Amino acid sequence: MAPLGLVPARACAALFSPLLRPPRAVRARAVRSHSQVAGAVLTSQVKPDQKKSNFIIKTPKGTRDLSPQQMVVREKILDTVISCFKRHGAKRLDTPAFELKEMLTEKYGEDSMLIYDLKDQGGELLSLRYDLTVPFARYLAMNKLKKMKRYHVGKVWRRESPTIVQGRYREFCQCDFDIAGQFDPMIPDAECLKIICEILSGLQLGHFLIKVNDRRIIDGMFAACGVPENKFRAICSSIDKLDKMSWNDVRYEMVTKKSLAPEVADRIGEYIQRCGGVSLIEQLLQDPRLSQNKQILEGLEDMKLLFEYLTLFGIADKMSFDLSLARGLDYYTGVIYEAVLQTPSQTGEESLSMGSVAAGGRYDGLVGMFNPKGQKVPCVGLSIGVERIFSIVEQRMKVSDEKVRTTETQVFVATPQKNFLQERLKLIAELWNAGIKAEMLYKNNPKLLSQLHYCENTGIQLMVIIGEQEMKGGVIKLRSVASREEVAIKREHLVAEIQKRLSDS
Amino acid sequence: MAPLGLVPARACAALFSPLLRPPRAVRARAVRSHSQVAGAVLTSQVKPDQKKSNFIIKTPKGTRDLSPQQMVVREKILDTVISCFKRHGAKRLDTPAFELKEMLTEKYGEDSMLIYDLKDQGGELLSLRYDLTVPFARYLAMNKLKKMKRYHVGKVWRRESPTIVQGRYREFCQCDFDIAGQFDPMIPDAECLKIICEILSGLQLGHFLIKVNDRRIIDGMFAACGVPENKFRAICSSIDKLDKMSWNDVRYEMVTKKSLAPEVADRIGEYIQRCGGVSLIEQLLQDPRLSQNKQILEGLEDMKLLFEYLTLFGIADKMSFDLSLARGLDYYTGVIYEAVLQTPSQTGEESLSMGSVAAGGRYDGLVGMFNPKGQKVPCVGLSIGVERIFSIVEQRMKVSDEKVRTTETQVFVATPQKNFLQERLKLIAELWNAGIKAEMLYKNNPKLLSQLHYCENTGIQLMVIIGEQEMKGGVIKLRSVASREEVAIKREHLVAEIQKRLSDS
Repeated sequence: MAPLGLVPARACAALFSPLLRPPRAVRARAVRSHSQVAGAVLTSQVKPDQKKSNFIIKTPKGTRDLSPQQMVVREKILDTVISCFKRHGAKRLDTPAFELKEMLTEKYGEDSMLIYDLKDQGGELLSLRYDLTVPFARYLAMNKLKKMKRYHVGKVWRRESPTIVQGRYREFCQCDFDIAGQFDPMIPDAECLKIICEILSGLQLGHFLIKVNDRRIIDGMFAACGVPENKFRAICSSIDKLDKMSWNDVRYEMVTKKSLAPEVADRIGEYIQRCGGVSLIEQLLQDPRLSQNKQILEGLEDMKLLFEYLTLFGIADKMSFDLSLARGLDYYTGVIYEAVLQTPSQTGEESLSMGSVAAGGRYDGLVGMFNPKGQKVPCVGLSIGVERIFSIVEQRMKVSDEKVRTTETQVFVATPQKNFLQERLKLIAELWNAGIKAEMLYKNNPKLLSQLHYCENTGIQLMVIIGEQEMKGGVIKLRSVASREEVAIKREHLVAEIQKRLSDS
Repeated sequence: MAPLGLVPARACAALFSPLLRPPRAVRARAVRSHSQVAGAVLTSQVKPDQKKSNFIIKTPKGTRDLSPQQMVVREKILDTVISCFKRHGAKRLDTPAFELKEMLTEKYGEDSMLIYDLKDQGGELLSLRYDLTVPFARYLAMNKLKKMKRYHVGKVWRRESPTIVQGRYREFCQCDFDIAGQFDPMIPDAECLKIICEILSGLQLGHFLIKVNDRRIIDGMFAACGVPENKFRAICSSIDKLDKMSWNDVRYEMVTKKSLAPEVADRIGEYIQRCGGVSLIEQLLQDPRLSQNKQILEGLEDMKLLFEYLTLFGIADKMSFDLSLARGLDYYTGVIYEAVLQTPSQTGEESLSMGSVAAGGRYDGLVGMFNPKGQKVPCVGLSIGVERIFSIVEQRMKVSDEKVRTTETQVFVATPQKNFLQERLKLIAELWNAGIKAEMLYKNNPKLLSQLHYCENTGIQLMVIIGEQEMKGGVIKLRSVASREEVAIKREHLVAEIQKRLSDS
């Protein structure tokens, strides 16, 4: 269960850290598929006289193909996510894979160095999108839209260094839901958290916890601790690394690399150990140092309101108000959140986190950055981390040895005799034209056994069999692959009979 | 109707050329959305002390956003395409947006200059994929697969110069279906053509014609006409431009830029004027110059076989064996095809083409280019040109003034009174938890009229209304937006009643 009392958040982080990397199996597999082709060398077939180039056949570093088996799992996950987005009234949007380079500058803080730029081939300077949020803000500003509830499913690209974050992909899929518009406080914010809960419950990923904080509380805490205002975002970025680094390393980075006074760092260190629920909010409202700060009071009052709405939604028990949650991106201005999966630990005392699977927050200034007059459109949103969820589901299926069908073929057109290609072609076209999913072997004279095997291997349940005898009788044999039962059907009733069987099953 | 007799193909090309560009409306709109924001200047809100950069807010040249309205249309088209691919037993595959640069070299001939390269930021040299075919071949070789029937839907990128091909997009979506494996001749090839027919019929785009040719026939014709073998691909590439340029311009390019002897060009010019059906195949088999060539005989015999299968599939009347069809890409080795839409012309004599909407062919050498031993995996496939189909459907909807609903919301939660936010939040969470698509306004105290308007504007059919009276009576009002009828339902029966109404409608 989610820890709602005061628990030392850092203690958990230390425990969780070995689990924050993607499952070992994923990394091992990536290595194996490279070594499989390690000796492979390209030889050009088209221009054999040209010099041969030697290279390994692989996908670029940090990217991967998704096999048909993987695509089935991926699409099931996306279906759950997209259904939920539609349930909450979102419209779908799409934007180009790359943006003008200048659209992405000053949005991501330190992470900007991870942006993929395109080569200057004449014309505009372009970059691959780093997330789906900045393109959404650009879209709103460009079309002068003041409100919109949209979702967007697409790939984003980040030049993560595998030495820092092992096994993290450089190309990955994001599913974003965002609400833009001026509304009464915390109502859209609460809906975003409800959506995360619905999706994680819907995917049956087990227990999860959503850490919640607010940039105004973080900034107010920084001010109260004595962080100079021009260091706010840099220090925020350091704190965001707490799920990958120990507090000591983060403190070292803040003091040494970001020239923060050690005593200021230690004051921050005290606060960010705290997490809990409404009682923590009340406690902080009483804190003599914090309660002086107007910004932090606003943040805490809104956090109280948020917890009230979350209680009405019946999801407050999944939440943990966590002062160590910072989020790396520059553009957040209010509530921020991050969902982690948990497995009950052996002792039953604390639960183990398996890394963040969803995150988001409020960014009220981003659209204004694209507007000539700086006109703001308040926004709040969330992003589902499909890759990590995918790894978990995939591994679970591996453990349970669950078989995945990668095609949907319903009927196989077979013959036990030679010279029946023409009849098979006519027959299968009839099935296709009736909307029936059908396959046959691409051979003039296939063996009956190999046709049977094809059905068994690919999970096709029905076979239609045509041969000399059937031709004479004006019938087709319909065979159930599982039961091996065969019945003769009049040729002209075949399509109707198949459709009946398919709708019954 | 498709011209199956001998008609002068060039005459049509000249007629069609003004129509080969995308509809004017698309181009005009792109311009308008730019000028809307022409004066827009970026002002950074995060770091106001930094120098302001002046730029226009836009998407990169040749790219566009897809609005929710457009996404609905796009997804309907993709649904039709993907259902057809599944009906033919294909598995889904996904590959990264970029490949190692060297994977794409020597695959596209003259078009290689249109490839987007990524900036060298240290590490591997990368390029955005130019199509989905080369990544598929790379996948097969990398995983040592000898057969596979797969589909792939994804974006590809080409640096088309807008001065040459006005209005063509630089980012666009492709839907590819391919059959890899060693099979008996022309059976998979015929299925690919059947798939194109099913999709274009399914999308109800009107009359269409599929031009078919064979690289062996083209190369054999080149040889018979006296084209030097090392010029085959270059001349092929020139002929491919016949749908954008006149024969005179193509001839000029071949003679001047590619140093082809003028009399050779003229011999080619004679042949490529021919198109038709089986009778043309027979005629060419008798041609004294061509019938000497072994390659061309193979191509013509296979073309006969193909037409036999197409007849069995009931689609031969959609085909035109067309000697002017060349296709630009280097990797084709056998049958090639291209589907064009037609509108009946005024005179009824000839039909107007609206440009290519699907294309493909056989490429038996491509996988071998990635294999160290050059082991070949024969392949044949097709690609659906979603953007052009999309333009046509979109324009048709504009003409018919068809309204598109961009959300799927089924129920709206409303109140006529103040201070009912809590009740609305509890109620809507109940609906969401029951899988019902529901929305409410993000306001503490919205006006009833604005809630009614929201339903009318977004097409929501059902309203649940809660107020003081209902609270006391333990009921909720259920209102049909269209008929304005209201009934009171016991609170505990509400979800069941809504589900009943939704399944009835």
